Amino acid sequence: MIKTDILIIGAGPTGLFTVFEAGLLKLKCHLIDALPQPGGQCAEIYPKKPIYDIPAFPEVLAGDLVNNLMKQIEPFQPGFTLGERAETIEKLEDGSFIVTTDRGTKHHAPVIAIAGGLGSFEPRKPPITNISDYEDNGVEYIIRDPEMYRGKNVIISGGGDSALDWSIFLTDIAESVTLIHRRNEFRGALDSVEKVQELKNLGKIEMITPAEVIGLVGRNHLEEVVIKQGAEVFNRECDHFIPLFGLAPKLGPIADWGLEIEKNAIKVDNTLDYQTNIPGIYAIGDVNTYPGKLKLILCGFHEATLMCQSAFQRIFPEKRYVMKYTTVGGVEGFDGSKKEAPKAVVKSID
Amino acid sequence: MIKTDILIIGAGPTGLFTVFEAGLLKLKCHLIDALPQPGGQCAEIYPKKPIYDIPAFPEVLAGDLVNNLMKQIEPFQPGFTLGERAETIEKLEDGSFIVTTDRGTKHHAPVIAIAGGLGSFEPRKPPITNISDYEDNGVEYIIRDPEMYRGKNVIISGGGDSALDWSIFLTDIAESVTLIHRRNEFRGALDSVEKVQELKNLGKIEMITPAEVIGLVGRNHLEEVVIKQGAEVFNRECDHFIPLFGLAPKLGPIADWGLEIEKNAIKVDNTLDYQTNIPGIYAIGDVNTYPGKLKLILCGFHEATLMCQSAFQRIFPEKRYVMKYTTVGGVEGFDGSKKEAPKAVVKSID
Repeated sequence: MIKTDILIIGAGPTGLFTVFEAGLLKLKCHLIDALPQPGGQCAEIYPKKPIYDIPAFPEVLAGDLVNNLMKQIEPFQPGFTLGERAETIEKLEDGSFIVTTDRGTKHHAPVIAIAGGLGSFEPRKPPITNISDYEDNGVEYIIRDPEMYRGKNVIISGGGDSALDWSIFLTDIAESVTLIHRRNEFRGALDSVEKVQELKNLGKIEMITPAEVIGLVGRNHLEEVVIKQGAEVFNRECDHFIPLFGLAPKLGPIADWGLEIEKNAIKVDNTLDYQTNIPGIYAIGDVNTYPGKLKLILCGFHEATLMCQSAFQRIFPEKRYVMKYTTVGGVEGFDGSKKEAPKAVVKSID
Repeated sequence: MIKTDILIIGAGPTGLFTVFEAGLLKLKCHLIDALPQPGGQCAEIYPKKPIYDIPAFPEVLAGDLVNNLMKQIEPFQPGFTLGERAETIEKLEDGSFIVTTDRGTKHHAPVIAIAGGLGSFEPRKPPITNISDYEDNGVEYIIRDPEMYRGKNVIISGGGDSALDWSIFLTDIAESVTLIHRRNEFRGALDSVEKVQELKNLGKIEMITPAEVIGLVGRNHLEEVVIKQGAEVFNRECDHFIPLFGLAPKLGPIADWGLEIEKNAIKVDNTLDYQTNIPGIYAIGDVNTYPGKLKLILCGFHEATLMCQSAFQRIFPEKRYVMKYTTVGGVEGFDGSKKEAPKAVVKSID
C-alpha cells in the first residue's frame, strides 16, 4: 500500500505543480497516471508544440514545460504510479481514501486531487475482432519501453506523427520495422515525413501502403498479422504489432466515483477551494468545471495552489498556516535541499 | 485623452499579463503606474531576487520575470503612462470611465482593471520641514532618468540596496556623488557594499557617515544641504539631493473610488470574474480579496485571464467568444506579427 498526504490523479502540468505547492506546506504527494511518463498530453501528444500562453514564457515547447515542472518539484520527491489507471475509490471510516488502479496497485491518502485533464487517454483500437487476446502479448497501443523491441520484428500501423516518429526511433533498436498505413499520404511534421522517406530508401523501414491489418494470428503470443492491400490478402510474421491510431481522452472509471459530473467534467466549489461534492476530493485543471471555467494550464496552477491550502487545513485542522513568500523563506526540499535568495549583509564602509 | 479597451492600473506582473490575455481577445490595453518603469515591485524593489514559485520556473529573477512578460505582451502593443498615479475616476453615462492621474493625464476606457498590488509605492521621506518646496526642484525620491544627473553634484542618502546601487551607478554620470547615512554600516548585497567601498577608496564616492541631512537651502532650486555629523553641523553645495529611504505601498486615492474595501484590499466576486462592486471595474492580483485569497503572482495570472473574458462580454455584449488554444490558433499580434506552431504536412511517401 502506497501512503501519501495528497494522492494526485493525473500527472499533467496541473498535477505536477500541485506537488510544488503541497511541498511548500510540507505535504507529500504521489501521482497516478495512465500514461507511461509524467506530463499528460503535453508529453504524450504534443511535446514539440509551442505553447504561447504560459505566463512569462513568450513561447515554450510543451515538453520543456513538463521538464521545467519536473525540475521544480524534484526537491519534494513525489512518488509516481505510471502506466496504470485509477479505477476504484473507497472511503474509510476516518475520512481517508484508498484508490486502486487497473493493475491492482493500492494508494492510501487523506486527500485526493483529481487533476485528470480531459480524462485518461485511451488508445483508439483498430477493429480487429480478436485483438484483445493479444494485448500485452504482442499488441501494444502505447510504447512504454522501447527496449522491449530490441532485436524484434515490429509492425507499426498509423499515418500520423506517432507512427512516423516511433518508426524512425525503432529502426535503431528493432530487428525490422514495417510501417503500414491505409493511404500513401502521411500527416505529420515535415521533418518526420522526410526522415521516414529516407529510411525507406535506405531499406531500414519497410512500407506497406495503402494497406490495413485485418487479422492477428498466434498461439500464446502474436506470430503473424494478416494484411489487406487492395484485393490482395497476405500474412506477415512479426513479434509485435503496434497500432498508433491516436489517443482519445475518457473520464473513465472516475465517472463512477459518485462525483457530480456536468458535461464530462467534475463540478467543484470555485468560491473557495475547488473541492468536489465529496469532502476530501478536489478536482483541479481541465477536469473540473465551474461558472466561467477556462481550460487553460495557467488556471490549473492557480486552482492547485488554493486547493493545497484547503488540503492542509483538512489534514491538520489544528494548525494555522501562515503563508511565507518563497522570495523571503526560500524553498526547503524534502531531500534536504534548500534554495534561498542570497541574504543581505550588514557591513560597515570605512 | 488616451483611449483604450481595458485601462489597467498597475504595471506589475498581473497587470502586464492582462495585456496578453486581452490581446488574445483582440482588446487593447493601456497601463498606468506610479513607478517610472513597468514591473511593479519585481522591477523596483527586488529585481535581482530569485522567485521560486512561478509555475515552470524552478528559479527566476524578479527582473527577468518582468522582462519575459514584457516580451510576451510586445505583440499587443500596450500603452503606458508611467511615473503617474491614478488619482480620480469618473463614470460617464454610457458606463465607461475617465481616469485622471496626479499629473492630469486623462484616460478613457469601457473597462478598468485595477492590478495595483499592495498599492502605489510612495517614497518614505526624511523629516525635513521644507522638503516639499524642493520636490522636483533638486529633491527626488525615485530616480526616473539617470541622465538628468549628468555633470551634476549629487548627494544620496540611505543605507540599503537602492542607496548603494544608485551611488555606484551615478559615479559614471554625475560630476560628484556623496553618500550620507546615519550609520557606518550598510545593509545590502555583499557585492554592492564591496563596490561602494572600492569606489570610496578610489575617491569616486565621498562618504559622510554617521550623518544626516537635516535641512535644505536654495532659492528656486536646491543649492545646499545642511548636514549634521555628531555635534557638528555644516552645509554642502549640491544640485540634487536623493533620499532613498525605501518605498511603502499605499492603496492611495483608489481607496476613495467607492469600491468595497476590506483590510486595505478591494473585495471582488471570485465566483465569476473578479469584478468589484462597481460594474466595469475589476480588481486582480494582490490588490483584491476574496475567501481563500492568496497574494501570489500565479493567482494574479489566473484572475487576469478570467477577468478578460468578462471584460470582452461587457465590451461586446452581442458577440460570443469561443476560446481558441494558442497551441492551435497561435498568437496574432496587433503589430501584424503571427506566432504559430509549424503546421503538419500531408505528404506521400513512395
